[in-house]
Amino acid sequence: MANVLVIGGDAAGMSAAAALRRRLPDAYEVVVLERDEWTSYSACGIPYWIAGDVDSADDLVARSPQEHRANGIDLRTGTEAVEIDVEAREVEARHLESGSVERIPFEVLIIATGAEPVRPDLPGIDGDGILGVQSLGDGQAVIGALERDPEHVVVVGSGYIGLEMAEAFVVRGIRTTVVERAPTPLSMIEPSLGQKVAAAMRGRGIELRTGAAVEGFVLDDDGRVTGVEIDGEMLPADLVVLGLGVTARSGLAADAGLPTGVKGGIVTDARQRVAGADRIWAAGDCVETRDRTTDLPIHLPLGTHANKQGMVVADDVAATLLEEPNRLTFPGVVQTAITKFCALEISRTGLGEQQARDAAFDPVVVSIETSARAGYMPEAGEMTVLLVADRGSRRLLGVQVIGTENAGLRVDAAATALTAGMTVDDVVMLDLAYAPPFASVWSPVQVAARAAVKALDA
Amino acid sequence: MANVLVIGGDAAGMSAAAALRRRLPDAYEVVVLERDEWTSYSACGIPYWIAGDVDSADDLVARSPQEHRANGIDLRTGTEAVEIDVEAREVEARHLESGSVERIPFEVLIIATGAEPVRPDLPGIDGDGILGVQSLGDGQAVIGALERDPEHVVVVGSGYIGLEMAEAFVVRGIRTTVVERAPTPLSMIEPSLGQKVAAAMRGRGIELRTGAAVEGFVLDDDGRVTGVEIDGEMLPADLVVLGLGVTARSGLAADAGLPTGVKGGIVTDARQRVAGADRIWAAGDCVETRDRTTDLPIHLPLGTHANKQGMVVADDVAATLLEEPNRLTFPGVVQTAITKFCALEISRTGLGEQQARDAAFDPVVVSIETSARAGYMPEAGEMTVLLVADRGSRRLLGVQVIGTENAGLRVDAAATALTAGMTVDDVVMLDLAYAPPFASVWSPVQVAARAAVKALDA
Repeated sequence: MANVLVIGGDAAGMSAAAALRRRLPDAYEVVVLERDEWTSYSACGIPYWIAGDVDSADDLVARSPQEHRANGIDLRTGTEAVEIDVEAREVEARHLESGSVERIPFEVLIIATGAEPVRPDLPGIDGDGILGVQSLGDGQAVIGALERDPEHVVVVGSGYIGLEMAEAFVVRGIRTTVVERAPTPLSMIEPSLGQKVAAAMRGRGIELRTGAAVEGFVLDDDGRVTGVEIDGEMLPADLVVLGLGVTARSGLAADAGLPTGVKGGIVTDARQRVAGADRIWAAGDCVETRDRTTDLPIHLPLGTHANKQGMVVADDVAATLLEEPNRLTFPGVVQTAITKFCALEISRTGLGEQQARDAAFDPVVVSIETSARAGYMPEAGEMTVLLVADRGSRRLLGVQVIGTENAGLRVDAAATALTAGMTVDDVVMLDLAYAPPFASVWSPVQVAARAAVKALDA
Repeated sequence: MANVLVIGGDAAGMSAAAALRRRLPDAYEVVVLERDEWTSYSACGIPYWIAGDVDSADDLVARSPQEHRANGIDLRTGTEAVEIDVEAREVEARHLESGSVERIPFEVLIIATGAEPVRPDLPGIDGDGILGVQSLGDGQAVIGALERDPEHVVVVGSGYIGLEMAEAFVVRGIRTTVVERAPTPLSMIEPSLGQKVAAAMRGRGIELRTGAAVEGFVLDDDGRVTGVEIDGEMLPADLVVLGLGVTARSGLAADAGLPTGVKGGIVTDARQRVAGADRIWAAGDCVETRDRTTDLPIHLPLGTHANKQGMVVADDVAATLLEEPNRLTFPGVVQTAITKFCALEISRTGLGEQQARDAAFDPVVVSIETSARAGYMPEAGEMTVLLVADRGSRRLLGVQVIGTENAGLRVDAAATALTAGMTVDDVVMLDLAYAPPFASVWSPVQVAARAAVKALDA
């Protein structure tokens, strides 16, 4: 009998398991099933491993299976959960190497099955050399492919993973083409900022094909990719990386009759309890969560949320088992994200213009240019800040930043302000850090907030 | 008749004057009296001018007297206000060059006289070569002194101006001694962080004398400084820079019977109206303001506050003259500050431990070490975050950060969180920017907040 059974040994699952192991008395068993051989690793670090900034997969592993076991967790790697029996309170698990199957009863179940990359159903998609970047195994496959000295890499999709991978290939001196369906790359930011990213990509020698849909992949007789077909044209490619985003890996939960929502995300309450289920929790990339600005459900797979949700799960499971009061809830997200392309930092928080409109706000959008330091400092840098506010309430809805040094992390103050429900007037009066090497007397986000005030008062 | 008379042509005064000139009909006169020949300049930039990062004083001037005049402001430089007659609603002004005196009647008076550096009444203090760094004139004097190739510079005081000046001299290859009365430099941060600053200063070859009180200055027969006496010892010095902080330059206001408070700061309400006075406003380094965390008065001379207060004054003066509703108030400060010493970034917001105790909070203080990027990234950097929380309410009271790249601006999110009255539990659940080049899955301020939660729950 597993008192606590966790499916999935990455950020959400292992952070919950580790916290429970520390908090529960030794008599409680904590069992984790993980298909792979790795645990607690940073998938976000894979592009930096490919780029050569990080030496090996091991460096991306925050805590190894051995370490987890030494801490008293019954961690079963190479073991895949194949069925959840909600009524019988059992999980059927298959040991991948031996093929043997067992049924593991649980008192508490934690589902942390993560996300799976989108692989569009296109001709040739299963060819050799067409790789995702979701797991350390994927990363290893890309590293292996690089040993064959590819001449042309095509990255499909220009979300942040696509962008980071493109940078990695460029750093390695490989001819790189990025194919993006939208008119500008990096759809997490508004097109006006996306144009700046496009310019930076092209400036580094990337062939960026926007407004282009992949129609299929050309394979040679051995089933190896040799090209990517877009709009009747064939792009040569001996390595293709898919960066088309992910959906929740929630088939197991859905098959068991558990509710799923946005992008297949398992539906939970703020304690991460699966809706309508008894003593079943879910956390991480496999769940849908709540956007704090709109109060609407959203699927936002990111390690930082997975870790927090894992902590919330551990608190509520322990409280339940030990009959203590619950202390933590997960309040949701505000869609903060950050990435960089070479020296260009790019970040966002809250809502974009269309998102704001979709959520029934009346958005006012302003965009300003400012410097990263006082304007008279050497290398003062350039920065663009786009800000979205609600006309009626004057509430801050979103901020996006693009620029060189000192740019990206500016969104943290904005994320905090919009979480607090501040108006743009409140933001103008915030006491933010000022000194010539870091900002002008008005911090970049405040320059944008002042422009918004002016637009609202016009 | 000056409809609007402004005393002082720097950040607060000129931002108010410029905004009023834009908003008031042309029939209204806006007159500004300024003793110096410069307007709207960045005193904070002076150390970077001394260091050679900025070419000339002109670069530090955001808007010149000529530009202000071209915009329709009656700007009278070289003109000192010598008396305010509150009853008669007149200011007596002296033209410094000619010595001529006139009385200028006003409908509205804005006092923006700034701050003056502390010059302790010590033997020899008036010797040549003992300089402050408050005005562009001071900066010019330091530049002039550097042309004499000083061998030993002594900086008295290690606040951020002292620190920035010490860096400037070190960059120029001059032997530099810093004398500080306290046991550690940079009293705006806790001593445990101050020790790291001390180590960095000594690492760059600065002779740092802490716990040392200056007893006097040794002058040669020409009245030029040759040494600084501390505790019976004589430090050789052919240039001395005073960085002992400032007090409000409010003598003129006090002589007129206007109320002053902390460090001589003129007392105003949230619209910057001078308490008890009719149609007299004050803004910038000459006023006391309100700390938003403690709700207590504080004197916090900083360009960023001066600009905001100038904007508030302009709004309220215009509203008064034009009989329109007032829109803006100045909500106070949270004591955010940032500086750097060479590669080390140092910042703070909110209250330190003793400040929290003095304000009747029950502070819990934690300090954590973390990396500026994901730990596996190259040059992940080091950062120390100290966090102060209130035991009873769990409210965030203060954050201090010291570290290399990506460190200093972290306080902006903390400043925003404490302005919003967030608890440390709220901070843990903030959605802050995460990607390997910028942070670990827990942002540094959140790592500290988690430590605070642990300490509070212990």
